[in-house]
Amino acid sequence: MTGAAANDRAGTVGTGDAAAAVADLLVATGIPVDRARISARAIVLADVWGIASHGILRMPSYLQRIEAGGINVGARLRDVRRAGAVVAFDGEAGLGHWQVWHAVDVAVQLARTQGVAVAAIGNSSHCGALGVYAARIRAAGAAGMVLSNGPAAIPAPEGGQPLLSTSPVAGTAAPLGHGPVVDMALGAITRGQIARHARAGEPLEAGRAFDARGEPTTDPVAALAGMIAPIGGPKGFALGYLFEALTGLVGPGLSLDVIDPFSVEHGAQAQRVSHLVLVLRPDAVDLDGDAVSRLERLRAATTASGGRVPGGERRLALEGTVQLEESLRAELVAWARRVGARTAERLLHGP
Amino acid sequence: MTGAAANDRAGTVGTGDAAAAVADLLVATGIPVDRARISARAIVLADVWGIASHGILRMPSYLQRIEAGGINVGARLRDVRRAGAVVAFDGEAGLGHWQVWHAVDVAVQLARTQGVAVAAIGNSSHCGALGVYAARIRAAGAAGMVLSNGPAAIPAPEGGQPLLSTSPVAGTAAPLGHGPVVDMALGAITRGQIARHARAGEPLEAGRAFDARGEPTTDPVAALAGMIAPIGGPKGFALGYLFEALTGLVGPGLSLDVIDPFSVEHGAQAQRVSHLVLVLRPDAVDLDGDAVSRLERLRAATTASGGRVPGGERRLALEGTVQLEESLRAELVAWARRVGARTAERLLHGP
Repeated sequence: MTGAAANDRAGTVGTGDAAAAVADLLVATGIPVDRARISARAIVLADVWGIASHGILRMPSYLQRIEAGGINVGARLRDVRRAGAVVAFDGEAGLGHWQVWHAVDVAVQLARTQGVAVAAIGNSSHCGALGVYAARIRAAGAAGMVLSNGPAAIPAPEGGQPLLSTSPVAGTAAPLGHGPVVDMALGAITRGQIARHARAGEPLEAGRAFDARGEPTTDPVAALAGMIAPIGGPKGFALGYLFEALTGLVGPGLSLDVIDPFSVEHGAQAQRVSHLVLVLRPDAVDLDGDAVSRLERLRAATTASGGRVPGGERRLALEGTVQLEESLRAELVAWARRVGARTAERLLHGP
Repeated sequence: MTGAAANDRAGTVGTGDAAAAVADLLVATGIPVDRARISARAIVLADVWGIASHGILRMPSYLQRIEAGGINVGARLRDVRRAGAVVAFDGEAGLGHWQVWHAVDVAVQLARTQGVAVAAIGNSSHCGALGVYAARIRAAGAAGMVLSNGPAAIPAPEGGQPLLSTSPVAGTAAPLGHGPVVDMALGAITRGQIARHARAGEPLEAGRAFDARGEPTTDPVAALAGMIAPIGGPKGFALGYLFEALTGLVGPGLSLDVIDPFSVEHGAQAQRVSHLVLVLRPDAVDLDGDAVSRLERLRAATTASGGRVPGGERRLALEGTVQLEESLRAELVAWARRVGARTAERLLHGP
């Protein structure tokens, strides 16, 4: 974990500068510039959307894994299997962001002729916030879902061992290019939230976590050494099992095999993350040609009832500013010096 | 609702007899025999699997809707749109069971050449337990998901109106023909469970339901007139919104438009349910050809940890017996006499 301690001063950085700095850091490690830029955009968008846990905060762990060899900067996205509407790629231990970004393009393109398409990636790495890729499906005026596996964290009901990842899922259905960008995990709490409770000395809400033996706990310290509960108990586990089995088809690993992205000890090992991107062309299933007005009516009814469209406001544009904790900024400047990323050093160095 | 009161005596019926009786009842109303038999199998399987709420208990409501005209016994499954790997059918207000059953066959067949396929049905009716159709995808050695919409029951967080159905979802990933049969809804409780609490005069667990104004309630009577909470709060709502938007692409209706299947008042109106069946051929995404052993390892790890594979034991075979409450049996015998279903009358009449 980075040292984003509560007493850090926060600095404001323009999103363009932040993305340029992140891209420069990645390029300096050997990632080709187009892939670095795409990855930087995906990373900074998470901050723009208020999901800082999946944004720039992750850069030190990515850089550490790149330096140790666990992320392969020379990875290609090699298509191993092609059926009519499916492509399966070997990610060759590359950074997940540009790989899933590209998989969306491939699936959108295939769905144009096939109506539906799947692009799968095995042997990849963490790709940040899945919603970024759902937002790209939305921008293409399509519908779809994105799944990834990750380090095992959720046990079976009555089970005492972590089996499933936090089971992230993202999706959209946007025949006109606007609509929801759902982005969530099936875990009832995140490790980051548990860690914040531990630092504050505050108990967790009941039903959110287990200790290392699989007993329910509200003690955040015990939970950090333990496991995360799924939302809805057996229901969340069942749905997570489905997502796990679907990403498990791709391989080479299950969540049981995925390396923790923050692990320094295993920094040299490929993470072996699998991603699954599904894209559906809305007009292929739209019986009466009226899907646009139906989804607009759903949005209007949601708003009129006092609710909000999940992720409806999440845009792909890099606008405004992001907040960087001082400790994270200093850590990134140190990395910039280490890898010789002069632009990043300048942009992040501050006044 | 049927009169399955707590003091009913329960009768034991062989599943073969139960399916024959259900099929005979449907044939007597004018549904072609092959479609009636398929529907009967789907209906009785729900009882075999312990989901009686989606099984034979529903027959009186189906028969009532058929008699009133809301279910069209002469419905075809007319393919309105075909793209490479997608077929969209107009269900013509037919019974959902045989229609979704057939959609699985179409999608499995298409996925053989395309790797992935979607079969959508609009303008259909209730199809019982979605897991039945996931089990058929499993039996084909494939993977996939099944979604349906239904009467609006779940409001947005902070919203005071029902927007989403209980958001049922089923799925599987079974490269060898065995694996999970996930079958669940995103509602934190069912109407049937609320009704049982009301009859018993027992309060609900907190967080399960809302009253008619959208305020959280533990009063089952207030909840019956109100709304159902999603699992995981905003997370369950977000995922339900995604499922709603996906089925909403198909049309002609949103969950906001779907007629309550138990409504006698609206029995003459087509229910306007949409179904979405996705099938993925496991080997199309299996990078290293090792998916079978990976999923077997997931199963073994689940069992070893003390857990169970969700729906792993659910078979498509009609085996053993099912329990019929006396009031339901009597109601079905009355229906058999009314529609002239002699075989059903004989099989259900008992000693």
